[in-house]
Amino acid sequence: MKLTPSPFAPQSFPSLPEVKGLRAAAGSRGFYARRGIVRDDVFLFAFPDAATCAGVYTVSNTASADVRWCRQALKAGGGKARALVAHSGNSNAFTGPKGVEKNEATLAALTTVLGVAKEACFLAATGVIGEPLQDPNFVGAFVPELAARLGPPDWEACARAFMTTDTFPKGSGRTVELGGVSTAFAGIAKGSGMIMPNMATMLSYVFTDAAIAPDLLQGLLEQVTNETFNSITVDGDTSTSDTLMVFATGGAGAPPIMSREDARFPAFAAALHATCLDLALQVVKDGEGASKFVTVRVEGAASQHSAKVVACHIANSPLIKTAMAAGDANWGRVVMAVGKSLEPIVMDDLAIWFDDVQVAKGGARAPDYDEAAASAVFAKPEFTIRVHLGVEAGAATVWTCDLTHGYVDINGAYRT
Amino acid sequence: MKLTPSPFAPQSFPSLPEVKGLRAAAGSRGFYARRGIVRDDVFLFAFPDAATCAGVYTVSNTASADVRWCRQALKAGGGKARALVAHSGNSNAFTGPKGVEKNEATLAALTTVLGVAKEACFLAATGVIGEPLQDPNFVGAFVPELAARLGPPDWEACARAFMTTDTFPKGSGRTVELGGVSTAFAGIAKGSGMIMPNMATMLSYVFTDAAIAPDLLQGLLEQVTNETFNSITVDGDTSTSDTLMVFATGGAGAPPIMSREDARFPAFAAALHATCLDLALQVVKDGEGASKFVTVRVEGAASQHSAKVVACHIANSPLIKTAMAAGDANWGRVVMAVGKSLEPIVMDDLAIWFDDVQVAKGGARAPDYDEAAASAVFAKPEFTIRVHLGVEAGAATVWTCDLTHGYVDINGAYRT
Repeated sequence: MKLTPSPFAPQSFPSLPEVKGLRAAAGSRGFYARRGIVRDDVFLFAFPDAATCAGVYTVSNTASADVRWCRQALKAGGGKARALVAHSGNSNAFTGPKGVEKNEATLAALTTVLGVAKEACFLAATGVIGEPLQDPNFVGAFVPELAARLGPPDWEACARAFMTTDTFPKGSGRTVELGGVSTAFAGIAKGSGMIMPNMATMLSYVFTDAAIAPDLLQGLLEQVTNETFNSITVDGDTSTSDTLMVFATGGAGAPPIMSREDARFPAFAAALHATCLDLALQVVKDGEGASKFVTVRVEGAASQHSAKVVACHIANSPLIKTAMAAGDANWGRVVMAVGKSLEPIVMDDLAIWFDDVQVAKGGARAPDYDEAAASAVFAKPEFTIRVHLGVEAGAATVWTCDLTHGYVDINGAYRT
Repeated sequence: MKLTPSPFAPQSFPSLPEVKGLRAAAGSRGFYARRGIVRDDVFLFAFPDAATCAGVYTVSNTASADVRWCRQALKAGGGKARALVAHSGNSNAFTGPKGVEKNEATLAALTTVLGVAKEACFLAATGVIGEPLQDPNFVGAFVPELAARLGPPDWEACARAFMTTDTFPKGSGRTVELGGVSTAFAGIAKGSGMIMPNMATMLSYVFTDAAIAPDLLQGLLEQVTNETFNSITVDGDTSTSDTLMVFATGGAGAPPIMSREDARFPAFAAALHATCLDLALQVVKDGEGASKFVTVRVEGAASQHSAKVVACHIANSPLIKTAMAAGDANWGRVVMAVGKSLEPIVMDDLAIWFDDVQVAKGGARAPDYDEAAASAVFAKPEFTIRVHLGVEAGAATVWTCDLTHGYVDINGAYRT
């Protein structure tokens, strides 16, 4: 089916800065050929000098063969990367021994063609779950051609190559001064459905030419993920392939950041956070069928964790999401979602705002409740639902979109 | 908006047996008058001799004033009931002190008009959350008229009076021999959205003229609820007003069942279970916008609880529910839902069937996978998704429906 572009799609793909110390190539392996579609569906990144890397992956118990390989490689290789291959059109999840065979074949090709250690190679796949590849070497056989074409990355081409139901390619980048050295951050992401915290269901890669110690990068990435990719939700579903990796090439030429006490660390962390947040919000804005982009802010909770649980109950409620789609400011459903979260609340202090319009106060409808004002907020393409639980100072923010006819259409037709 | 009747709606309301020892009346209080609709919206049941009663209620932290009163009365009154009033059109949830005032006014009317103890009176309300009643005595003032019209129940009229987005009234009844005495069971239910285990969101009342000890009835009801109303899900949302109560009038004239060792207990339990299951499945079949009725069976789990958690993840997944709606046998999404449940599985033993068609085996697509056969199952209006997790012998069944354009429409328009 032809997908309608998200109303939040940017005019054009952003211009991303040059990240020194990497080369890339995208190409068409033909995963979509059986549907009569010619498009790029695979990319290769190569790091001539090993890049420091970190990764977070789906918590799913049915993780794809690629995710299981990446976890293993990250551990065995000590956070050093020489190559990354990702493709769309087949998720290589729930493919049994064949899925492992496919990875071994791809890894064999990478080690041979690029002359790098197997444990320095990372893989990802996205598409329909459970369809075995007929030829385990389908991707591996294409590696020589990709390797021959390695050069400065065409970020947009790479971002397009791993799209599935995405309606626009997603990229984000920035340049920051770290200790007087100009340092680049560039990232790409794909994902628009099967999106929910616990590794928001998508693939995303961020590249920087800073240098940083592997353990420090891994710890920072986990923290950043919690506040970005793990704070978005489209449909509450969690994929088998969720992957977020960061590669620090060191190409900018500065000495590595070795600890949180390094004066450059806060700016590094902020740049990584900003890049991840921008990419994560683009994923929500491209949520399948999305017509509204909604920020859910929960305050006054027993803890930050409790606030996030309540925010996710609100953001994932089909009743609230359909009300968003219709522009119906049905605030009673927010009360329902808060209640079913089973998190601590003081009901007589519960308060709810739509943007700045207070709709509930002191455990009941606000005395000066104004239906027209509340409806005006829900009619906007972007707005905030804010809830105060009246317990302690725990707070969290989650971003989501509405549930529309488009979501029903897209997900009935995905495989066809 | 005009609701399209569920394709699973029965031809007519079932004929329910006479339950001795109760009287009832339904009437129109005018809750829907502002929308120009004339319909019954309230009913009263009265038990001339106190009925033994038991109840289970929503676990929501934002439970309605009515639910909070019922919990209190059940405890204070020792499981004895003289009256029950339920109305639709306003949920009396999140209405603060005004909600309690309304209940006090209704209870005062009941104690005066019927001459019964306050703690023997039970209340329920269903409708939009958070809209305060302008006149706290709105229901109470109607009690004298209802009381004057008490008589043999018109079950269908009562079942219609508390409907909200239901497209058909729900009733179920049977007559069984208990120790040689003919004993009647009759029940009614409402609910079609905001439905999910943890007291499946709805109101339901079951009446029998058997006699039974209150504690025994309460324990049995909790057990039966777990396998019936708490095993259905429409949208994963949980209401603030969920209520299931059983009233045993003793009108059949037999001595009370005092323990599980009583020879009549198994047949009593089976009749209560059958009545609750029938009502619960009618609620799913009237799920908002439902076009498919799907049984999710999980076997081979670490425990019964674990099996139910996995079954609920499958039954509540928007991606699976939209695939059901489209008749797309996308079994990979079942793998996804199993994985995100985070329950123990042996992935290499995971197996999935659609009715009798095996689609996954040994942690991969079944070797003899037949897309046409799988699609044929998903094209049916009713089918079963069965999953074997390969761990232990824990098993559970959950019933659900699909997610269609109708659900999006109904829930965007509910308040208007």
